[in-house]
Amino acid sequence: MPTHIQALRELLGDRVVTDPTIAAGYAADAYPQATSLRGEEFTVVRARRREDVVSTLRYAAEQRVPVVPQGARTATTGAACALPGAIVLSTELMTAVEIDPVERIAVVGPGVINTDLKAAAAEHGLAYPPDPASSSMCTVGGNIATNAGGLCCVKYGVTADYVRGLEVVLPGGEVMRTGRRTAKGVAGYELTGLFVGSEGTLGVVTEAVLRLIPLGDPALTALAVFPTLDATIAGIAALRGTRHTPSLIEMLDGPSIDAVQAYGDYGFPVGSGGVLLVQSDRPGHAEEDVREYAALLGGAGATDVAVADDRAEADLLMEGRRVLNPALKARGSRFIEDVCVPVGRLGELVRQAQLIAGRHGLEATCSGHAGDGNLHPCFFYDDTDALSLAAAQRAFDELVRAAWALGGTVTGEHGVGEAKAPWLAEELGEAEMARQRALKALFDPLGIMNPGRVYS
Amino acid sequence: MPTHIQALRELLGDRVVTDPTIAAGYAADAYPQATSLRGEEFTVVRARRREDVVSTLRYAAEQRVPVVPQGARTATTGAACALPGAIVLSTELMTAVEIDPVERIAVVGPGVINTDLKAAAAEHGLAYPPDPASSSMCTVGGNIATNAGGLCCVKYGVTADYVRGLEVVLPGGEVMRTGRRTAKGVAGYELTGLFVGSEGTLGVVTEAVLRLIPLGDPALTALAVFPTLDATIAGIAALRGTRHTPSLIEMLDGPSIDAVQAYGDYGFPVGSGGVLLVQSDRPGHAEEDVREYAALLGGAGATDVAVADDRAEADLLMEGRRVLNPALKARGSRFIEDVCVPVGRLGELVRQAQLIAGRHGLEATCSGHAGDGNLHPCFFYDDTDALSLAAAQRAFDELVRAAWALGGTVTGEHGVGEAKAPWLAEELGEAEMARQRALKALFDPLGIMNPGRVYS
Repeated sequence: MPTHIQALRELLGDRVVTDPTIAAGYAADAYPQATSLRGEEFTVVRARRREDVVSTLRYAAEQRVPVVPQGARTATTGAACALPGAIVLSTELMTAVEIDPVERIAVVGPGVINTDLKAAAAEHGLAYPPDPASSSMCTVGGNIATNAGGLCCVKYGVTADYVRGLEVVLPGGEVMRTGRRTAKGVAGYELTGLFVGSEGTLGVVTEAVLRLIPLGDPALTALAVFPTLDATIAGIAALRGTRHTPSLIEMLDGPSIDAVQAYGDYGFPVGSGGVLLVQSDRPGHAEEDVREYAALLGGAGATDVAVADDRAEADLLMEGRRVLNPALKARGSRFIEDVCVPVGRLGELVRQAQLIAGRHGLEATCSGHAGDGNLHPCFFYDDTDALSLAAAQRAFDELVRAAWALGGTVTGEHGVGEAKAPWLAEELGEAEMARQRALKALFDPLGIMNPGRVYS
Repeated sequence: MPTHIQALRELLGDRVVTDPTIAAGYAADAYPQATSLRGEEFTVVRARRREDVVSTLRYAAEQRVPVVPQGARTATTGAACALPGAIVLSTELMTAVEIDPVERIAVVGPGVINTDLKAAAAEHGLAYPPDPASSSMCTVGGNIATNAGGLCCVKYGVTADYVRGLEVVLPGGEVMRTGRRTAKGVAGYELTGLFVGSEGTLGVVTEAVLRLIPLGDPALTALAVFPTLDATIAGIAALRGTRHTPSLIEMLDGPSIDAVQAYGDYGFPVGSGGVLLVQSDRPGHAEEDVREYAALLGGAGATDVAVADDRAEADLLMEGRRVLNPALKARGSRFIEDVCVPVGRLGELVRQAQLIAGRHGLEATCSGHAGDGNLHPCFFYDDTDALSLAAAQRAFDELVRAAWALGGTVTGEHGVGEAKAPWLAEELGEAEMARQRALKALFDPLGIMNPGRVYS
């Protein structure tokens, strides 16, 4: 039971949610294995400004209350789920956006929605590239907390590549500024990067200075249909022959396509072995590029290659990719992987995923950011059947180990949260894990920032 | 007197320099205010492999001996100068380079020379962009230690943007791997970025995984001559009107040009108010871009704009820029600034530099990476005159404060070392400085890694 509502209301007034029904909406993120608490089991603070965050973290330290920082709850790892007795500190209402076109930076509150920031930048001919599949819902604060990637990474990199500086409220309520507003700066250790991807375990971001770049051309899309998954992989390899890196290389295997089309008609070809979506946004050359990509994909064995030089058609195809996550959610209970391997080992990873699923008698989908070697295979299970659940858990573990054997990592972009915490120490090794724990203790000596997440 | 030679020779054999004349060559970096120790006052270890670094750091911890990690000693801050009684641990002989064209990465030893890495990457049609002015001499390990920038940053960013993972030997000799070889990865805190720019205060890099990008076209150059410094600044502002970011925007004021031409004839126009060098390497469009830049610069008031579409001519002009540092060194004793301000405030910074120099009766040059707002003004003094030295010191301090007032930083790319250590705490503020010191203590509890540098 949350015993902190009254005390926090004295400090923060209407920032504190008193209605358990409303609080319940803050219980869980998009982690399929999340256990949703009832609204009575935690306290929600909706911060509107830095001082609200300061007051909350000061109170939490005084009272030794765990704090779960929260954006839009689109994480798939449980990193943003409420904890019993904890304060859920939402920054979703801190939505300030200020674009400085001369410096090509945005100064934003953590609650701004990713696509709102993109739109604000676009008004100045500028782009904020990071684009998780949830970009129309997720907050930039959450993107920073997870170092979110997305569909653009193959050309444009990840969130960390765009964060120049942060204002962070540390456990206990102290305010710290990291980084810079200038193009360059090397005064002291780079603490900004330490907070990017720290999943709420070190402090709460209250402002970010983000780098913007000139807007590319509207992206054009090539869609290639392959008879087999192996041919699809060959298509990815063929794209490495181009000098002009695509702005997107997404893969969907047959079961992923079927799931999308079962969710709605997004124009994907049901019954194929796999599909690649490839884009170019290169100024003045997008059409030339996608035609080159189409030729490469045809040469690799695509049975059908369509160039969506019609913007509406391209948007529809991309929309189909963007709904993949809800479509897979609708398909049934599942474990979501986020392994990333060297791009040259992607084919082996996909084959391993199929073998593992087959061995455990599970249905699986295999899709994701093929250009980065970062896939999100899903293992589906019957949640009324403990054996099926156990098989999916084993498959999940085996795929992580397969990724490691290929030189990969347990998480390319989703983060560790609860879902991947059991694998972290083994991946990092003793020397690094010891330092990571010490760093956590340095910033959060009471261990109250998102406890049990990442470092379980 | 170094008492460690005998003990270290038993551990490391011929890695230990016994000839004080040879050791003397390792005494100082390019910091103009460095005090060069004699070769007898410290011990030099030239590591050839990771195990040499491990043995050295283990010995140093056991014996509580300070260690100064060292690359090619091109730092301008004193960060790599020998300390009395210390072990200078040079990694200049660890020059392995392995290019993986499929993953577009390079795996290198810290001793590889920056331009050697570029050449190795270019054989595969790939580029390693970071290019400090000392690129033909400096090591990648040193670049990582300082998060080196250079001439390309305006388009391509800094060293940190290309470091994916590190192998680091920690104080005491423990080996830690940070980061990844994959395109993406978010497992745990990002420790790679903590080591990039840490100036030898946390450990010694023994291997780096570096991201490579497709090679641009050979750069073409526009050279614009301006009658006044104000007009030069107007030229920089005009370049912001282009969608296609130049791959280089370098500024030299009149006194800088005179210094270069006094050093050798590099084709620069003596007697002008300022010169801008602007390049494009955009595939298929370099010539079109430099003509656009030339038009913008002409519109901003350039009295003469030459487009070096001849590669040899472009190289000569760039060579003139690259010898600026030795040319200024030859000009006389000086303090070298490295302030970085928001690009829109560059004009104010330049005017402040002139005002400050004038107020103290000093000669000054003002040049640098104008596209990033990162300049290297120099204040020249008579080193036989204590009053002149004191005036230059005051000017140096006043320019730092002017940069701060404009929203800037004391160091854009050179690092803190000894030169900027007195300003670090004031720039970072109490909250961040306290955490930086705690981080230093976490990795180096004995305080023996490059002591007195950065955190004095």
